[in-house]
Order: sequence, then structure tokens, then C-alpha cells
Amino acid sequence: MTHSQLTLVQIDNYGPWTVTPNPRREMDLQTLQSRLFADLAQFVGARDGYVFFTRFDNMVAVTNGLDRADHALLQETIGNRYPVTISLGTGVDATPAAALEAATAGLQHAGSAQDGDRREVLDGEFLPETERTDGDVRIAHFDVNDATGKYTDQLNEFDSFIQIEQGYAAVMRHLREEHGALSFFVGGDNIISVCPAMDEGDYRDAIDYVETDAGVELKVGVGTAATPHVAGMDAKHALEECRHEGTIVELGRPAEEAGTATD
Amino acid sequence: MTHSQLTLVQIDNYGPWTVTPNPRREMDLQTLQSRLFADLAQFVGARDGYVFFTRFDNMVAVTNGLDRADHALLQETIGNRYPVTISLGTGVDATPAAALEAATAGLQHAGSAQDGDRREVLDGEFLPETERTDGDVRIAHFDVNDATGKYTDQLNEFDSFIQIEQGYAAVMRHLREEHGALSFFVGGDNIISVCPAMDEGDYRDAIDYVETDAGVELKVGVGTAATPHVAGMDAKHALEECRHEGTIVELGRPAEEAGTATD
Amino acid sequence: MTHSQLTLVQIDNYGPWTVTPNPRREMDLQTLQSRLFADLAQFVGARDGYVFFTRFDNMVAVTNGLDRADHALLQETIGNRYPVTISLGTGVDATPAAALEAATAGLQHAGSAQDGDRREVLDGEFLPETERTDGDVRIAHFDVNDATGKYTDQLNEFDSFIQIEQGYAAVMRHLREEHGALSFFVGGDNIISVCPAMDEGDYRDAIDYVETDAGVELKVGVGTAATPHVAGMDAKHALEECRHEGTIVELGRPAEEAGTATD
Amino acid sequence: MTHSQLTLVQIDNYGPWTVTPNPRREMDLQTLQSRLFADLAQFVGARDGYVFFTRFDNMVAVTNGLDRADHALLQETIGNRYPVTISLGTGVDATPAAALEAATAGLQHAGSAQDGDRREVLDGEFLPETERTDGDVRIAHFDVNDATGKYTDQLNEFDSFIQIEQGYAAVMRHLREEHGALSFFVGGDNIISVCPAMDEGDYRDAIDYVETDAGVELKVGVGTAATPHVAGMDAKHALEECRHEGTIVELGRPAEEAGTATD
Repeated sequence: MTHSQLTLVQIDNYGPWTVTPNPRREMDLQTLQSRLFADLAQFVGARDGYVFFTRFDNMVAVTNGLDRADHALLQETIGNRYPVTISLGTGVDATPAAALEAATAGLQHAGSAQDGDRREVLDGEFLPETERTDGDVRIAHFDVNDATGKYTDQLNEFDSFIQIEQGYAAVMRHLREEHGALSFFVGGDNIISVCPAMDEGDYRDAIDYVETDAGVELKVGVGTAATPHVAGMDAKHALEECRHEGTIVELGRPAEEAGTATD
Repeated sequence: MTHSQLTLVQIDNYGPWTVTPNPRREMDLQTLQSRLFADLAQFVGARDGYVFFTRFDNMVAVTNGLDRADHALLQETIGNRYPVTISLGTGVDATPAAALEAATAGLQHAGSAQDGDRREVLDGEFLPETERTDGDVRIAHFDVNDATGKYTDQLNEFDSFIQIEQGYAAVMRHLREEHGALSFFVGGDNIISVCPAMDEGDYRDAIDYVETDAGVELKVGVGTAATPHVAGMDAKHALEECRHEGTIVELGRPAEEAGTATD
Repeated sequence: MTHSQLTLVQIDNYGPWTVTPNPRREMDLQTLQSRLFADLAQFVGARDGYVFFTRFDNMVAVTNGLDRADHALLQETIGNRYPVTISLGTGVDATPAAALEAATAGLQHAGSAQDGDRREVLDGEFLPETERTDGDVRIAHFDVNDATGKYTDQLNEFDSFIQIEQGYAAVMRHLREEHGALSFFVGGDNIISVCPAMDEGDYRDAIDYVETDAGVELKVGVGTAATPHVAGMDAKHALEECRHEGTIVELGRPAEEAGTATD
Repeated sequence: MTHSQLTLVQIDNYGPWTVTPNPRREMDLQTLQSRLFADLAQFVGARDGYVFFTRFDNMVAVTNGLDRADHALLQETIGNRYPVTISLGTGVDATPAAALEAATAGLQHAGSAQDGDRREVLDGEFLPETERTDGDVRIAHFDVNDATGKYTDQLNEFDSFIQIEQGYAAVMRHLREEHGALSFFVGGDNIISVCPAMDEGDYRDAIDYVETDAGVELKVGVGTAATPHVAGMDAKHALEECRHEGTIVELGRPAEEAGTATD
């Protein structure tokens, strides 16, 4: 059984800050947002967690392996180096969507995202070290079959992009509604989903749904481990298996074997 | 009449690089992608252009104001500081989608995105300085009505995100199909579209379509100028007008007035 | 008794890389060097270590609190995101200079800094967790008395800079020769030294030497702890004491008290 | 005759900010300082200027090629993305030290570096476009003969560093006192000096002085052009000439030839 620890990262009072005293240069906002995300990716990633840019002012992280002190340090270092601060809410649940629900609720109780007084909330439930297991985190890494051949080298970039977006929107909705899994586009033709316990048939169903709904053909590699990094690496290797074997679903090492092995 | 200069930025041979000799840590890829985008945003933005992260391995920029030498310098500085290189294709057309089509074709002719030998292509058509006018670039800046109240402070983050994505997917498809406009999600609840000449009714139709198709209510500010930055600033101010006046479409200063004025 | 763990970070084959196939834009080299250092500062700093930019192609870190696995991860993440790689040599000794000697020797044995084949060496001795104590790291934080009043607001910037440099060069030489301590200019009018066990008189002697040799008046705060961050914070607070009390040497909490307390 | 345009970049109220409400993590300060410098290097470098980290809270730039509007934009973009702001003072003179004197005075007149109210000063004299010539900027690029063989591969890193620092301190003082030239350590074993008109004998004298005073052997390449980048590139190529020819002073193309040629 999975135990996903999800953290919501929310920039405090960002909307008002971007237009006070006047609207700021758009490319400066894009730069700030991207570099803030990159710093979160490094901090969380170095502890074997994952973070996704999502909406940039609100970002979703899978933080199995990071405790409350780690979250406090992350908040402090961002506050020291950016013109904005972040609030962090954390939740734990077998179902990723429920964990994120709990994480979000923690921030919402403390105040609105645009509350001028709410700053640097640190709230929530953290998975105790003694309760962590090698089956806690399940990562599914999807990519589009032959995206380069079918799209990138054929269509203009925006039409390739529309295709990838359709595929993403479809798998995102399906996995959320059917399983409470959370899916994120991570660049190129890649989508990473944080899943509860699901079997091979569930992944095939998701792939069939996307092909029917959006006309986009996906394949997937799945990994399970105590942390997103190890589970995700297993998923990447499983995806390479798909490529070599010509299959569309490959499950990595079982939980018992994956353990906390580094790659 | 608009004259959009679109540049496609494509990382050379990125797919293979990310898995050779072995798959790389996902958070390192996210960091590299985001920081590369941030550097493009600063370089292009400092020359009053706009760039959008799009798929990160393929990024779309509106480069009215940047000439061939600027593009060459951008390519050089990225090549000096990253473990990857970029190819740049540029096109010009009254319709943004057509300009991007030409930009993409330039790269496709030179070789596949995953061609091991194709590196640092610099290709395309640049809008001559003498032909530039204050009506060249039209930027529409959409945001979701009361996103904080309706979504961010009410739903868990992923469900807020799904709502915003639905709205984005709808306006993206509609504007591309109806007008050849290109739309990009830029964080929060904001979408920026690069448009050809369109009238107030066209923007209202787009907003109606999105409300019907995705149940998301948008409002929009529109600006026109010789560069994306000036047009985009006018659009941001027009959006503030919507906020104050309670309207859903506001057009900024006409082209003749906007000129090359700084804000 | 102190037990300093020093790590030498050396960019592999950097000299040749900067001029192959042709000399690269100087500002791109400055950017790469500074951002690489910043990433090291974040990685090492998040684990309560300190790193100093030193010569940028060779950087010195105090890594009490980072083990071999941490060093391996640092090397991997840099290799994934930069066009260069780094070699890491580590040494442990009561005297910082001796520890750095051991760290450097490890790399020198593996090959020249400009050996085309030597890449990503990871070598050395790490202080075992069980042997770590609260007296391991001693940090002395010096600053110039009234630098703003005497220099910054009076002289042109280069002459202020020359003054600060003279002060730095003097304390750097004195502490190295007398005590095997390593001193680093960290910006503004601040110098941080990693010291072996020294008493209050030793710090006064150093300050007298600098005043005589360079005509620059320093004051100092000193801290001791298991990690550079905790020792350094104690040193900063001690320096504030100097400011308030008008003294020139202040020692922070004794080792037994400092422990591993966060501030 | 040279016409150096020097800009002093000063972070507003930085000292107090670093300790308010409490001292901030040292590695966060190092990260902020380095990344701010890197951004300046990119902005100024893309316009063919040079900037040197100097004291990090005060940085010196050679800005021939950047006008007042460029300086205003630089100030705006930094203010949008950092928790601090910068003041910029600019001066022009045949002698670099005099130009910097004028640049610094502009800021000093507006208020102290630690004046809580002084923010974002933009002041000074800019070299008019019509007065710019190919002889305006002279760059001398020094490096230490066989630094890798003599120091890096032989001594522990700190002792190599002390040697390089001695050489730097000597050439810095000599060139400032004799010629009003400004010298900056830029990493490795490299020193870049911004010079007034000087002849080959003057460079040989400087090299002799450093060998006598510090026991460090330098060689130098010199370039002259309308901008630091072009002059500096010529200097780098001249330095490569030294390496190949075994000489210690090489002057690049004369001003008339260098012009504004890119490399």
C-alpha cells in the first residue's frame, strides 16, 4: 500500500505583488517563477523527492523523505533569497489526491493565498520515519510513442504542443477521477504521475482512454520505492524496457526489491 | 496589420542526451530546463521580446525587436554555459501560427531534433528594421475571474489546476483554429496569446467558447505595439481596467498611440 | 580540539576548456563560475557546511556534516547540469591547512587539474559520524570597523577595495603561517576564517598584526560547533556583540553549549 | 586615447539587510551575491560590457556600449527579482580610476550605502554615442606562467591561492598607482585590468614589479576596441600568442584595425 506525502508550495500574496505598485515586466515574472521552481527542484531532489511546477505560484511536491525540519529550512532559504515568501502545507494518504487535499486545507485554514498578512505558513502531517516502507511511493512515467517522428519533426511546434497537451489533459483527468492519482507534464513528451496502488490493467485502461479521447498513443514505465527519486528511476528504466521490447506497459522492480536502492 | 516574428528554440538531441549513458536524475532535468528557460526569458525580455516555456525542449518566442545577430549571440552564450546546445528557427507572418510554421520548417529541413549531428542551426527570416511598425505585435492577456476565490482558496490544488488547464486547453484550441493565434499558460491563472488582427467581438467569442466548453470564466486585456513587451504591458494595464470596471474585454491604446512607448 | 573536514572542489580540465576550440566570452565564464559556486553554496549550505569561491576553478569547502554519499551526489548533480565536471578531494585534521593539504593531495595523485583524462575523482577521508563532536569546527568572522564610514562613503570604490584587500591579504597570511587557519573574503568587508583551537589572545594578535601591516582595523566574532553553519551563526552573533559593546573580540558560546543547536 | 565608461553597482542598504531581523544563513548570502553578479554579467556582457564581482555588495563594470536606458532597465529587472535593489553611478574619463571616482561620487552625493532611504539611484555621465571610438577601451589580460605546473598540481590549494593573491595584490597596486588602471582577479590564475593608454614598456615594468615584489611570474595580452568584449577577446588571443611564442607581452590589433569587429 502506498503512503504518499504531498506538499503544496504556495507563494504568499503573489497576485497582488505582481501588480504593485505597477504591473511588472512579464519576462521578469517568468524568470523569477522558473528559478524559484528550479531551486525547489534542487532542494527537494537532493533529498530524493520530486516537485512539479504546476501553476508556478502553486507547486506540488512529493516529499517522502523530507521531514518538518527540511520543510522549515526550505522556507527559510527561499525567504532569504527571493522578493517573495512561500507557505508549505503537507499531507499524507494512500491516495495522492487525498494527501494533497489535506496539504491544501492546511494552508486554506491559515488564510487566503492573497491575504496580505498570511506569510510562511508551515503546516501539516509528516509520515513518521518509523512508518516508512519501500512501497510508499509509486511513480508512473508516461511518454508519447515516437513523438519526435510523429510530431516534432512533422508539425509546426504549436500543433505538436497541442497534441501533447491533449494527451496530458486526458490522462490527467482519467487518473485523477479513477484513482486519485496526480499527473504532471514535465517537458518534451513526458508525463509523470504519482499513483496509489494500481495494477497493470489500470495502466492499460488509462492508455486506451487517452488514445480514444485524444488520439495520442502513450506508453508507461512504473516504479515503486520509499522515495520518488528511486521509484522514478525505476520507472525511467522500465520505460526504456518498453522502448527496447516494443511494449506499452512495463512495471519496474517490486517494492520488496526496490527498497531504498540507489541507481 | 500584425507582423509577428516567431522564433522556435529547440534543444539539440535532448531526448538521447537525457538517457545517455543512463537516465539522469529527474530533478536535475527539471532544474536544467527551467534555468535554460529563465536565461532565454532574460535575454529575449531585455530586448522587449517574449518567450514561453511551452515544452521546455521546444520553446516559442516572439522576437520582434531581435535581429539575426541577437539570435546568434543567444545561441553562443547558451552553448558556453550549458551541457546542451540550441537551434533557432525564425519566421515572419501576419498570422502567428504561420510564422511559427515557417520557423519550425527551417529547423526540420536542417535535420531531426534527435539527429546526433545537427547542432546549433540558425535559420530563417527576420523582420527588417525598416519594415517594423507599431501595429506589428498584438498581445492578449487572459486571466480567470476570481481564481483565488473560486479555486485556490476552495479546492485542493490539483483540482484548481485541472480547472485552469481546461480553460487553457479550450482557449488554446479555439484561438489556434479560428485565428491562427498562439496561446501560452504563464502561471497562476494567466494565459498570454499572440494574436493576428482581431476585433473586440472575436475576444468575446473566445471567452464565450471557453465558458461553454470548460465552464471557466475568463476576462482579457489586449495591447498592440512594435514589441511584445510594450504590447504586453498595455494588455496588463487593460486587464487591470477590467478588474476595476467589472468588464471582461478591454483593448489598450491603439497602435498609433502605443508606438514604442515604455511603460 | 577541532576536527576540520575540508573538501577541495576542482573543475576538471577547466583551463583548456575555456579556450577550446576558441577563447569563450569572458562574461559567460564569469556567469558559469558564479552560478556553479552558488549551486555548491546551496547544496553544502543546506547540510550546514560552508563553501568559499576561492579561485572559482578551485573552491574550498568545510564539509563537517557531509559524508561520502553527499559528495557523490553533489558531483552527480553538477555533472548533469553543467558543461564541466568536478573532482572532489576531502581530508580531516585538527588543523584546517593540513586537512586541505590532504584533500588536495588526493586529487593531485589522481592526475593534473588539466589532465584531459582525469574526470570526477572522488577521494579522501571523511570524519566518521561517531567521532563528531561539538568542538569540531571553529569559525572566526572578521569585519572592518566602520568600513562604510571610512571607505565606502569616502573613497572611490577601487580604493575602498584596495584597503579591504590589504586587510584580507594580511590576516590571510598571518593566520595561515601562525595557526594553519584558512581565511576567505566573502564580500563587503567580511572575512571568514576556519581555525584550529585558538584563544582570545591569538585573535587579538591577528588584529594587531593587520593594523600594523595594512593599516586596517578589524574586529572578530568566534563560534564553535559541530558544523560550520552553527559555528558561523554563533560567530555572527558574537560580531553583533562587538558592535553593541564596542569590543573587538567576542567569543560565542563554548563548545559544550553550542552543540548542534539551530539558531 | 582611451575613454573608459565605468559604472559602480552598489546594493542598497545591504549591510543592515543581512542582519535584520537576525543574521541570515551565510550560504544564502553567498548564493544571492553570486547569482546577482551572474545576472549583471549576463546583462552587461550581452551588450559587450564587462563587470567584475569586486566586493559583491559593490561591483565595478566597464560599460562602454551601455547607455542610460540600458542602466535603467538593469536596475528595474534586478529590483523585480531580488529582495534587494541596486544603485548605479557612472563616470567617463581617459583614466579608469578617475572614471570610477566620478561614478562613486554620484552615489555618495545621493546618500550613504547604508542610508535606509536611499534606493535605486541612477546617476552620472554616459559617453555619447557620437563620441565613441575604437580606441576607447583597453583591456590587459594577465595570467600566471605555468600556474598549474607550479602551484595547482604541487601545493595545497590554499598555498596556491596565497601565491595568486600576492601576485594580484601587487599588480593591482602598481597599475593603480602608476597608471590609474583598475585590476580584477577573475578566477583561476587570471587578472583583467582596465587601462588607460600605456605602451609595451609599461606592461613589462608591471610584470617585473610583480616578480620582484611577490615572486609571481605573469604574462599579458592586450587589446583595444570600442567595447570591453572586443578588446578583451583581442587580449585573450594575444595571451594565446604569448603561450605559443613563449613571450610575456603581446599587444593585439591596433585600435584602427580592431574597430568593432566581432570575433
